[in-house]
Amino acid sequence: MAVIVQKYGGSSVADIEKIFHVARRVAKTAAGGNQVAVVVSAMGDTTDELLALAKQIMPNPPRRELAMLLSTGEQVSIALLAMALTALGYEAVSFTGPQAGVKTKGDHLEARIIAFEAERVKAALAAGKIAVVAGFQGARPDGEICTLGRGGSDTTAVALAAALGAETCEIYTDVDGIFTVDPRLVDNASKIAQITYDEMLELASLGAKVLHPRAVECAKEHGVLLHVRSSFHEKPGTIVEEVAGMEKEAVVRGIACDEDQVKIALRGVPDKPGVAARIFTAIGEAGINVDLIVQSLRRNGENDILFTISEEDFAEAIAILTPLTAEIGAKELLHEHNLAKISVIGAGMIHQAGVAAKMFDALAKAGINIEIISTSEIKISCLIDADRIQDAARAIHDYFQL
Amino acid sequence: MAVIVQKYGGSSVADIEKIFHVARRVAKTAAGGNQVAVVVSAMGDTTDELLALAKQIMPNPPRRELAMLLSTGEQVSIALLAMALTALGYEAVSFTGPQAGVKTKGDHLEARIIAFEAERVKAALAAGKIAVVAGFQGARPDGEICTLGRGGSDTTAVALAAALGAETCEIYTDVDGIFTVDPRLVDNASKIAQITYDEMLELASLGAKVLHPRAVECAKEHGVLLHVRSSFHEKPGTIVEEVAGMEKEAVVRGIACDEDQVKIALRGVPDKPGVAARIFTAIGEAGINVDLIVQSLRRNGENDILFTISEEDFAEAIAILTPLTAEIGAKELLHEHNLAKISVIGAGMIHQAGVAAKMFDALAKAGINIEIISTSEIKISCLIDADRIQDAARAIHDYFQL
Repeated sequence: MAVIVQKYGGSSVADIEKIFHVARRVAKTAAGGNQVAVVVSAMGDTTDELLALAKQIMPNPPRRELAMLLSTGEQVSIALLAMALTALGYEAVSFTGPQAGVKTKGDHLEARIIAFEAERVKAALAAGKIAVVAGFQGARPDGEICTLGRGGSDTTAVALAAALGAETCEIYTDVDGIFTVDPRLVDNASKIAQITYDEMLELASLGAKVLHPRAVECAKEHGVLLHVRSSFHEKPGTIVEEVAGMEKEAVVRGIACDEDQVKIALRGVPDKPGVAARIFTAIGEAGINVDLIVQSLRRNGENDILFTISEEDFAEAIAILTPLTAEIGAKELLHEHNLAKISVIGAGMIHQAGVAAKMFDALAKAGINIEIISTSEIKISCLIDADRIQDAARAIHDYFQL
Repeated sequence: MAVIVQKYGGSSVADIEKIFHVARRVAKTAAGGNQVAVVVSAMGDTTDELLALAKQIMPNPPRRELAMLLSTGEQVSIALLAMALTALGYEAVSFTGPQAGVKTKGDHLEARIIAFEAERVKAALAAGKIAVVAGFQGARPDGEICTLGRGGSDTTAVALAAALGAETCEIYTDVDGIFTVDPRLVDNASKIAQITYDEMLELASLGAKVLHPRAVECAKEHGVLLHVRSSFHEKPGTIVEEVAGMEKEAVVRGIACDEDQVKIALRGVPDKPGVAARIFTAIGEAGINVDLIVQSLRRNGENDILFTISEEDFAEAIAILTPLTAEIGAKELLHEHNLAKISVIGAGMIHQAGVAAKMFDALAKAGINIEIISTSEIKISCLIDADRIQDAARAIHDYFQL
């Protein structure tokens, strides 16, 4: 008897009708002779509504109390889904994150899972019941309730699948799977049938919003087979797994686009050891993700340090960097908005010279200027004018015949 | 340094403004040099709204899942109140029932507290923090989340006060305290300054809705001093405590009125051992509270058994009694609606002959007919026509000069 973990996001359980839709889907899998554990998020906009309530009290509520508040969202979903499964004639039992055995460490709102002690869930499955587990939450060993931050429910599902030794972890979403490029940008984008964890990680980090990188990392570490698929129909989606031999194929697997990028430039940074570390430690401690770091040596022992951040982190980054610019003796702090990042991803890329050249050629032919280039073993990213992102995506998609 | 437990009901925390009102009240007590633990219910109509959501799924949701769902209500309140206290500059920390150490047994929705292991709450108070505890909930030793049923938050507060050895357990409400009679019925009703647990128990059971009998029982057992008072002003309310010597005073302490009573009569019940037990066991197992049981021996070895129930239990009681009437060989099942029960309560009553006579005299002078009489050591109850309840309350209140 196969064990299958299914994860449904907040939009899939936004109202009673949708909860019944999910319940029927889960019930069908159970009726097919599988043991099923379901991970759900909070209903629809519940988390945002709770957050708004807290902000009415104070702009920066204590993080512990915010976790206490937000974790009620998933608890409502699991109870209602367990009821809906009962109404359909199935035995179901719900578990909060702490009850399911999600042990966390660290910050109350950005906790990380250190262990999934899934004995209660296992016992429920062994007793023929469907287990309904709250995503996004857990408890520290001292009993403190924590939430897992962005991508928390995906991560709960993957960690549960690992703990149960599940055959598959199905991530249900409102799209058909992972695409070669955002279908809103390029009409003939096509669904990827199979992709490696590393490729998926790059795609996930680079703006394919379907699956959170934390969950992909966790799946890679524990060898959990992921299936990203639509909750609207039964067709297969995208399988994420490690496939022997796949690395040797030189394939551009997909294109990722990130809009709302800001370029930050620190001009005239003294070329002394530890200066870059100081800048990026300060930024990192504020929880700001930095991407595309470029350092170029200028004259007179001074560097220019360039990097990109997301527009939403801009105000905070500037607040941190303005005093720091003076402290480290840099000459100038500059920023440029309305930029976008376009990346091509493929595990075989490193073995095949010329993929980068082809990408630059495609962009050049479309008359698109490149601001910054950054490469890794399996991706090449270019920062370009945000207004040209759609042209760029089409040009590259066509050039590589995805 | 005194430890004070305060309990605020759902209407006191119905919105953000009211939560701040409660927070200021709590803060003032803390600023007065006390250690304060606060017990709160779910905001306003939250519990009813969650219940309505569950009923959309199925008419009788599994009780376990309903407890899982409903317990989120208090969790939201405690987080928001802790935030409001933080916003006022106080250190506060919230605890769910399970976190606070409320250990329960029995049914998921009607759980009883078997122990309050308040170590975490004690540690928070010792560290100078205000502890905010979710009322109405706890967990079984196996980790199952349970709710405490009606009066659960009052009981949580009293049990916490007992566990902490608190000086006072303050029950905040929207009235000034416990009154000699319902002020809506009698204009010159007066507030009772001090009352014993037993008197309060009779008043609570008999329709003074301010304080739940379970909480009073718990307070009596553990000698917790209760202070029932208004959340709108600072004036003292009613103190509930055991007072030496108080028993000897022959005092009618107050009048309780219960409307919506139904009289059930089983006529011609065979006078055999165990028949009454059978009737009241069946009724009791359905969770129906029976009051004012009167059995009168008739001729031919047959009894009439009369008792009263609340109108809301009527349909269920009749469903149980109809087949039972035939089974036990009774002649007839009758019922009469639109009745009310009026009771006078006073710990000294038993030592003073004639209190009952005075009550009957007061009612007779007002031209009010008595259907059933029932007496205990500290109360006398009469069932009367519901339309005359206000006249009866006034007549008795004036007669005893309360």
